[in-house]
Amino acid sequence: MSLLAALDYLAVFVFALTGALAASRAQLDIVGFLFIASLTAVGGGTVRDLLLNRDMVFWIANPWYIGTACTAAVIVFLTAHRLESRRRTLDWFDAGALAFAVAAGAGVALSLGHSPAVVVMMGMATGTFGGLMRDVVCNEVPMVLRQGELYLSAAFAGALTALVVVALTGATPPALLACAAVTFLLRAGSMVFGWRLPIYRPRPPRG
Amino acid sequence: MSLLAALDYLAVFVFALTGALAASRAQLDIVGFLFIASLTAVGGGTVRDLLLNRDMVFWIANPWYIGTACTAAVIVFLTAHRLESRRRTLDWFDAGALAFAVAAGAGVALSLGHSPAVVVMMGMATGTFGGLMRDVVCNEVPMVLRQGELYLSAAFAGALTALVVVALTGATPPALLACAAVTFLLRAGSMVFGWRLPIYRPRPPRG
Amino acid sequence: MSLLAALDYLAVFVFALTGALAASRAQLDIVGFLFIASLTAVGGGTVRDLLLNRDMVFWIANPWYIGTACTAAVIVFLTAHRLESRRRTLDWFDAGALAFAVAAGAGVALSLGHSPAVVVMMGMATGTFGGLMRDVVCNEVPMVLRQGELYLSAAFAGALTALVVVALTGATPPALLACAAVTFLLRAGSMVFGWRLPIYRPRPPRG
Repeated sequence: MSLLAALDYLAVFVFALTGALAASRAQLDIVGFLFIASLTAVGGGTVRDLLLNRDMVFWIANPWYIGTACTAAVIVFLTAHRLESRRRTLDWFDAGALAFAVAAGAGVALSLGHSPAVVVMMGMATGTFGGLMRDVVCNEVPMVLRQGELYLSAAFAGALTALVVVALTGATPPALLACAAVTFLLRAGSMVFGWRLPIYRPRPPRG
Repeated sequence: MSLLAALDYLAVFVFALTGALAASRAQLDIVGFLFIASLTAVGGGTVRDLLLNRDMVFWIANPWYIGTACTAAVIVFLTAHRLESRRRTLDWFDAGALAFAVAAGAGVALSLGHSPAVVVMMGMATGTFGGLMRDVVCNEVPMVLRQGELYLSAAFAGALTALVVVALTGATPPALLACAAVTFLLRAGSMVFGWRLPIYRPRPPRG
Repeated sequence: MSLLAALDYLAVFVFALTGALAASRAQLDIVGFLFIASLTAVGGGTVRDLLLNRDMVFWIANPWYIGTACTAAVIVFLTAHRLESRRRTLDWFDAGALAFAVAAGAGVALSLGHSPAVVVMMGMATGTFGGLMRDVVCNEVPMVLRQGELYLSAAFAGALTALVVVALTGATPPALLACAAVTFLLRAGSMVFGWRLPIYRPRPPRG
């Protein structure tokens, strides 16, 4: 299995866990778990594949991705009641899925020879759109709107890292691993130590 | 007219009725009725056509679909004030539209020779995304989130029915009619008799 | 630069200003500004390009569009605190962006030889979907739902104007300029003078 396919599988599995946790918070039935998990799992990669006009969306070319997402949904359906905090677990899984998906998105754009701006956009879109669909459909506050946390910024820094490493070494695999590592570490640092960028606070208008 | 085109027209017309009813609840003007009705009517089929990479989205290839949706919007604009409960009417029309659209989505995927997993996903996506867009744009609670009702489950059972019938008989038309019938009957049974699947209720964490 | 490209750039720049203003209202950091501004700026044109099955989405073919959106985001990040009312400024910029984008959408559909119904739909979709994504993601009330304002109606009238002018003169550039002018003037008249269409108000059901 190629590194790109492995990243897609990892992102699908872990995003599906977060989708199923959101379904458990919304008290849905098992089919609701399967649907929200699949939507979250393949949402970002689907946007990427449509935008890049690939011949086939990745999970239509290969139905094992949906099987992976459904497996994750069933695992959560059977075990989520044992979790101390489903919200906190969801946040941590989402951090991992974000890291894998940013790398998967940037990797596909790199492999197709796109410009740096497109590589960054594909990394961020693949990383964030699945979770965004999950949050919009489940009426949760979208993670991209959480003030004072690194989320989009972590994805952005990860995608930039991929560009820098590929420019320095010419090799894609280490670039994608560095991308996933930087994304996850920044997100985790934000959750644990409160790392953040300054947020926008309006001052009163001047004379 | 082929059965697939007939199912698309029926889904478009009835989904447009639901979109116009949502527009009436949001007190929009006639252009708002036309827009929300069209969005709801073609939303699911558009997602299907984009995902399956068809040459042309169905309503761009044939503008009569938009004409059908606009006709439905005008009918509702002129008559909705006579309804005793627009919410209840919307629910019943939505059940019919869901049934037609699941069959239309599964039918297109079957006709293109896709795997069973993709047939089920296309049935569910075609059936639910139009209504989902309507509910997100109009700030209604998405139907997929209604606890203790068969909605996604009805669509899922309908799509499975199509797969079983086509496997047994080798013929698509009866499979699609059975799909629509099963979807509608399960949804109607849920609305009238309260049929449901067990929903997820967290128990307190064990030691 | 062609008129169509100029309209795309103008719509991208002004929609990006509105996205960044929405990001400032949500108190995001600079990466949040860049993301929401880009999403708003290219959202409508992306939907148009996917629906019309163009070879490449416009901002992937040409990364300067994203550069334009990011420039607008930085300008707002540095200056929004000087505004007396960011909500009011957002509304006015949105009116301008709507006008440019409706013309850009109708123009692309005209240049590809589509039917009048598709030209109108593409004008309205290109004009409204970027702002709709911005409002859904940022939890603002979607502009298409504002009661008693011309918004969708302004876009609709603008797209119709383009069709009429092109039918009378056979020339696209004046049609697109008239489209943008009509859209902006109707929207501005609605904001300043309260122009509106009658909205739907249910009367009690008759015997």
